[in-house]
Amino acid sequence: MSQSPQNLPETPESHLVLTLTCPDRPGIVHAVTGAVVEAGGNITELQQFSADSGQFFLRLQAKVNDPAVLRTRLAEISPRFDAGWNLDRVDRKVRTLILASKAGHCLNQLLFAQRDGTLPIEVPQVLANHPNLAELADFHQVPFEHLPVTPQTKSAFEDRVRQIVAEHDIELVVLARYMQILSPELCADLAGKAINIHHSFLPGFKGANPYRQAHERGVKLIGATAHFVTSELDEGPIIEQDVIRVDHSRTPSELVRIGQDAESRTLTEAVRLFAQHRVLLDGRRTVVFS
Amino acid sequence: MSQSPQNLPETPESHLVLTLTCPDRPGIVHAVTGAVVEAGGNITELQQFSADSGQFFLRLQAKVNDPAVLRTRLAEISPRFDAGWNLDRVDRKVRTLILASKAGHCLNQLLFAQRDGTLPIEVPQVLANHPNLAELADFHQVPFEHLPVTPQTKSAFEDRVRQIVAEHDIELVVLARYMQILSPELCADLAGKAINIHHSFLPGFKGANPYRQAHERGVKLIGATAHFVTSELDEGPIIEQDVIRVDHSRTPSELVRIGQDAESRTLTEAVRLFAQHRVLLDGRRTVVFS
Amino acid sequence: MSQSPQNLPETPESHLVLTLTCPDRPGIVHAVTGAVVEAGGNITELQQFSADSGQFFLRLQAKVNDPAVLRTRLAEISPRFDAGWNLDRVDRKVRTLILASKAGHCLNQLLFAQRDGTLPIEVPQVLANHPNLAELADFHQVPFEHLPVTPQTKSAFEDRVRQIVAEHDIELVVLARYMQILSPELCADLAGKAINIHHSFLPGFKGANPYRQAHERGVKLIGATAHFVTSELDEGPIIEQDVIRVDHSRTPSELVRIGQDAESRTLTEAVRLFAQHRVLLDGRRTVVFS
Amino acid sequence: MSQSPQNLPETPESHLVLTLTCPDRPGIVHAVTGAVVEAGGNITELQQFSADSGQFFLRLQAKVNDPAVLRTRLAEISPRFDAGWNLDRVDRKVRTLILASKAGHCLNQLLFAQRDGTLPIEVPQVLANHPNLAELADFHQVPFEHLPVTPQTKSAFEDRVRQIVAEHDIELVVLARYMQILSPELCADLAGKAINIHHSFLPGFKGANPYRQAHERGVKLIGATAHFVTSELDEGPIIEQDVIRVDHSRTPSELVRIGQDAESRTLTEAVRLFAQHRVLLDGRRTVVFS
Repeated sequence: MSQSPQNLPETPESHLVLTLTCPDRPGIVHAVTGAVVEAGGNITELQQFSADSGQFFLRLQAKVNDPAVLRTRLAEISPRFDAGWNLDRVDRKVRTLILASKAGHCLNQLLFAQRDGTLPIEVPQVLANHPNLAELADFHQVPFEHLPVTPQTKSAFEDRVRQIVAEHDIELVVLARYMQILSPELCADLAGKAINIHHSFLPGFKGANPYRQAHERGVKLIGATAHFVTSELDEGPIIEQDVIRVDHSRTPSELVRIGQDAESRTLTEAVRLFAQHRVLLDGRRTVVFS
Repeated sequence: MSQSPQNLPETPESHLVLTLTCPDRPGIVHAVTGAVVEAGGNITELQQFSADSGQFFLRLQAKVNDPAVLRTRLAEISPRFDAGWNLDRVDRKVRTLILASKAGHCLNQLLFAQRDGTLPIEVPQVLANHPNLAELADFHQVPFEHLPVTPQTKSAFEDRVRQIVAEHDIELVVLARYMQILSPELCADLAGKAINIHHSFLPGFKGANPYRQAHERGVKLIGATAHFVTSELDEGPIIEQDVIRVDHSRTPSELVRIGQDAESRTLTEAVRLFAQHRVLLDGRRTVVFS
Repeated sequence: MSQSPQNLPETPESHLVLTLTCPDRPGIVHAVTGAVVEAGGNITELQQFSADSGQFFLRLQAKVNDPAVLRTRLAEISPRFDAGWNLDRVDRKVRTLILASKAGHCLNQLLFAQRDGTLPIEVPQVLANHPNLAELADFHQVPFEHLPVTPQTKSAFEDRVRQIVAEHDIELVVLARYMQILSPELCADLAGKAINIHHSFLPGFKGANPYRQAHERGVKLIGATAHFVTSELDEGPIIEQDVIRVDHSRTPSELVRIGQDAESRTLTEAVRLFAQHRVLLDGRRTVVFS
Repeated sequence: MSQSPQNLPETPESHLVLTLTCPDRPGIVHAVTGAVVEAGGNITELQQFSADSGQFFLRLQAKVNDPAVLRTRLAEISPRFDAGWNLDRVDRKVRTLILASKAGHCLNQLLFAQRDGTLPIEVPQVLANHPNLAELADFHQVPFEHLPVTPQTKSAFEDRVRQIVAEHDIELVVLARYMQILSPELCADLAGKAINIHHSFLPGFKGANPYRQAHERGVKLIGATAHFVTSELDEGPIIEQDVIRVDHSRTPSELVRIGQDAESRTLTEAVRLFAQHRVLLDGRRTVVFS
């Protein structure tokens, strides 16, 4: 969420999406919808939510005759409400960097969906700490770069991430089963714009080989959680979750496969929600206007 | 959805829910939220939707200091937009008549949930064409009336429905596995305020004993659909649907039991959505602000 | 699982269910099915599973002309394979003691389903540490006993549990939101025949008020786990799990209601599986022949 | 299901899967498990089902020292029970021909899963009536052939299908959104070994553009059904079904995308079940030993 407007289209009758967040206070919806009226706009979708935290969240889509007027009015209104906002074209593709390691199931689903036109992202780069997904990226005509990660080279890898983010004006970093822990500094740099996926179980399991543990406990549901990256490992704000039913006869390796299905579905759905500006941050929680 | 406001509370700082629908036009959200501001209100929840049909739908909840002002302003605004609206207290219990036959699974779940305080309805009457659910109604301290239905007495039964609706100012009629077809006249009288439940299958089956047919086709999902009653049998606007997974080993009678689980869940959820004013009609469709 | 046969029917052409477990070894299925053939039986359902633990599990249903022959043959075979087994009539109702506290959602669903004939249990007694569910039990014509639990009276309550189990030959104890922790001794006494239900979240939460914590983390799925009672709190072998989707707008109290739906469904399903002899124990896991 | 054994391994200690079906009669499980014992085998998995139709179905996996003995014994037993049977190595990859048109979502998921080693099929050929999926097949190193279908060339296309089936000893033909109707003759030729996928709705819709119709009716669930191909269009025995929840705000084109997700998941799962010999035919139904 940026305070300053960006990606603003100047063409008449644009279909725009506005997200806005501010301390909850009477009059904010009225003021914003007034700005839309002045810009000759018609609201096609509007959702808002007042959180327990006292924070207010709004997402609206509008067909607008004069985007510049809307921008000007929002710039006038926002200081009054101490509001952060972002105005974008509906369906503009979000510039996305994908980080990967060896496993290709999430990368495949993301690249296939973007190529198919069903996931509004563009991917200027895949960066991986293993070489084996090069071919998959090539097939989807996405540049692939391999940079090994060792204790010695980890900071070089992370510098390269920062460089790509800067160079390509990256808006979203997706960890598509990238199996390295990001440094707290990089987590901070990417706060609110990096999404990770991990398996989830009922109950949760600590330590190595959770699928083995899940098998030993005989869990009946295998799940996945997509969340924003924070320096607290796997504790970032949750964006999307899903589960698949299993039974006692599944071997640990079958559980892994089923878990991978859950992971690629859940990550792709989380990326779709983000790319459509449907995910807003409320401290440790998300507000998802799905 | 009534053009005229009703159930309007006069106490200060009321928590209100407004639903409004009108032809889609710029300015409507701005006008309505302006009315809330003038009434000293703060919006706690707002959802809106512009349908393909050209119709606009809005539901908002607001904590309002002066409900009378809000009412006055809405009465002024609504003609301009040709809007129908309804203003109610959040959590007011909706007066509900339940029609039943012999099967008690839906009735039990509805009455248990309303008694438990988790379903905001009050039930001044259960009317059934069989006597056997009297005890269940008694237990929940809900008046029960038995009136048999034969070709000769069907119109007497329907007159009694109309009488109860009038007497108790009934807002919702729930057909909780009431196994008789309502006359087109009664369907018309109850348009938009009667909910029915029926089993659903993939694919659908015509004719008698659909569970037997579902068994013969070996379906893998058993479902239920809750919908508004219309004179087109089981073709009314859909409110809620759910399915449960089954396999080849289920006998037709087990499929019936599983289908009943799906029915009672789905009907209770549909009634909850209706009672919270979350279900708006858009021709043959519903807009459900869940 | 008892080594000695019980509940054995003597009538010809009985529909029987056999469960058997032993160390995995060639020939066991052949030997058991041979016994069925000798008893003039025809197998209608058979499932078996060889666990990683080296243990073998079998459940079969058969229509048998001479149950006594089957019993005799099984008694001969079982020592050879070091097998424990149980032979019962299909659909015999399992004698079940329900423990409850204040919340009635699980109790209501269990009693309604058994009364409806869709859950094969009979309930000679509900024992509760609060009085308020008496009316619900009365309605279902199930004897209700109230015995408060304090630190001083806890062992008296547990003695009463043991007494009821002995008196009524109880085969299953269901903790239907009974909010007290059983002593390790009672857990041991009821090993493999007591089922508990608890809420489950992705991720799990430690400490008080998990729904509040789930709300704070913004979880997207609310679940429930039914498991056997062990002295490790909420760590017993899992029988059944389910989840329901939620979003950011749900208040903690709505999450509680949704969690209760998940609990009553999941517990009822677990009790059904147990009562149909579909749940076998494999150390810390279950084998569920659903 | 072939009467004659095929694909029989001769190596000692093979892990085999046997499927067998015959009229239900006492003694069949005993006879088959006796054959396994004689072959020095240990059963690792066994499921059986007696259908209402009077037909008996069995699937077992066993680790067998002497596969030739097992084959001989089965050949002796089967005439007595009028049984058809098939013996195969567990995890042998099933030779699969994929038919496609323009849409790649199902093809991508199938090829990715087989390449990943999580779907036990090998694909000697993709045959399509449009050229645009050539690149996708190439990437997965699967031969791709384009053969247009017009009223004039339809029988040539079908002849080519038969030719590929014969040449590559094809065991399974998957219609991965192949949008042409097969002739009754080809349906008959491929009976029990061709799988199709189609969207499914509650309720079902006749005629063109079902997603538009589903949108107009405001359905809340979008599904997919994988079934065997028969000459009755979309009426073949059902193998697998799944649904995804939607709401009123989804446009018809979003419903299409969601439906595609359901289709590729459901088809891949159906192919997995088939390739593991878990799907047996019972007239118009399937028995699925999942």
